[in-house]
Amino acid sequence: MYSVRMRAAQGGAHEVGGHHISGAERIVSQEMVVQTTNDMLKRAFSHTRGQADFINIVVEKIDEDKMEEVPLLSVHTVLGNDVTAGHRAALKSLTQAGVTVRAAQSGMAALLSLTDSMGGAMLLCAVTGRRLDDTGLRGVRVSRMDIGDEQGFTAMLGDKDINNTHVREALVLASKVAAAPGMVAELCWSDDPEYTTGYVASSAGYIRIPHCKSLGSLLGGRVFFVKPDADMDMVEDYLRHQSVLVRMT
Amino acid sequence: MYSVRMRAAQGGAHEVGGHHISGAERIVSQEMVVQTTNDMLKRAFSHTRGQADFINIVVEKIDEDKMEEVPLLSVHTVLGNDVTAGHRAALKSLTQAGVTVRAAQSGMAALLSLTDSMGGAMLLCAVTGRRLDDTGLRGVRVSRMDIGDEQGFTAMLGDKDINNTHVREALVLASKVAAAPGMVAELCWSDDPEYTTGYVASSAGYIRIPHCKSLGSLLGGRVFFVKPDADMDMVEDYLRHQSVLVRMT
Repeated sequence: MYSVRMRAAQGGAHEVGGHHISGAERIVSQEMVVQTTNDMLKRAFSHTRGQADFINIVVEKIDEDKMEEVPLLSVHTVLGNDVTAGHRAALKSLTQAGVTVRAAQSGMAALLSLTDSMGGAMLLCAVTGRRLDDTGLRGVRVSRMDIGDEQGFTAMLGDKDINNTHVREALVLASKVAAAPGMVAELCWSDDPEYTTGYVASSAGYIRIPHCKSLGSLLGGRVFFVKPDADMDMVEDYLRHQSVLVRMT
Repeated sequence: MYSVRMRAAQGGAHEVGGHHISGAERIVSQEMVVQTTNDMLKRAFSHTRGQADFINIVVEKIDEDKMEEVPLLSVHTVLGNDVTAGHRAALKSLTQAGVTVRAAQSGMAALLSLTDSMGGAMLLCAVTGRRLDDTGLRGVRVSRMDIGDEQGFTAMLGDKDINNTHVREALVLASKVAAAPGMVAELCWSDDPEYTTGYVASSAGYIRIPHCKSLGSLLGGRVFFVKPDADMDMVEDYLRHQSVLVRMT
């Protein structure tokens, strides 16, 4: 199996200050590498956030003995008619998952104060809300994961009428993240201006929250809340490097 | 136009000690990016040096105002029946291009003492033969170049019966290198075990030299001989970053 991952930016590479446009992560057989790469290129060239002028694609063989399986999170959707309701639901879901009110507010504030898309995630202490990683504006990118049973996944999402790229990718990512050592919960809304539904995820489930931001906003990102005593090197290494196949339960 | 470049390694990425398998450089229109990427992936998976398990592809828009044109070097082939004759011809061609005997011998010795393929080139002083770059076993990679008139190039090489991937790529690279500030000459033979013809190139021309190594040898590389007073930052920046289209003359 091969990890195929893409990151795209505008105004040069991410490392030299380019503006993040899109990213993608797959784990596929060698026969699917070319097709997967083509799909990623097309996406980078036609993203709602703009056309990329820098695209990096890495294809890397995965040692199948070292691949982990984690369960797919169960999906729930809460109701709400506006951003105020969305943010209230996000705070409530975070505290129910074990994040303190203070840390949850701090995470919301961190996402709301973004001035550009980060590409990766901010890691905050689930008790104090203090930022724990030192990756600045780039964030920690979660890499090397995919769904194990693609057909079953598509069927399940189709039944719930949520089979779109955003949900597919976020649910796989959130399932990997929720299984990280010391992870408490995740808060996310997209940087895609056409997609305003966010989510809170934890090992208890993936809660979809409509209206986490206004339509047209290019600002979104991810916050991971981790236990105060978590080994940060271990958490970041897992998020970045551990190959994970998400298992339908 | 887009620079599309690929590097492939075995045993992990180059940065973590992976063994270099292959590299490729093109400058193409956006319509050709997907096809070019596919060709590079196929090549990385089926190289005579082995199958890559790490492939990095970068697609980057080029500012056409900053693109330079350089002339295609004229091609000559010397005769010779064995490696001894090949090495003698290489030394002679280098000294005729302005490299001292001492520096030419030093460059030959550097290539002959390689224990793995470098991917990039070593930069030596054309007078003393001392290594001037500090890139160690990776070398300086020449990037962002292509032929301007692909059909004319194919026709010209076909007429000479040397229209193969090795010559195509080496001649474009050598034409860029020969136009670098402070460059005196280049010595190269391939790390492809099935290709033993090497070359010496300078602004005076590209001299093909049969039998620079034994058939089956995986060891080859590039040495660039530069003037003692060359500004090394400028030379390396040109080799790595200057976009160059090679013009048929």
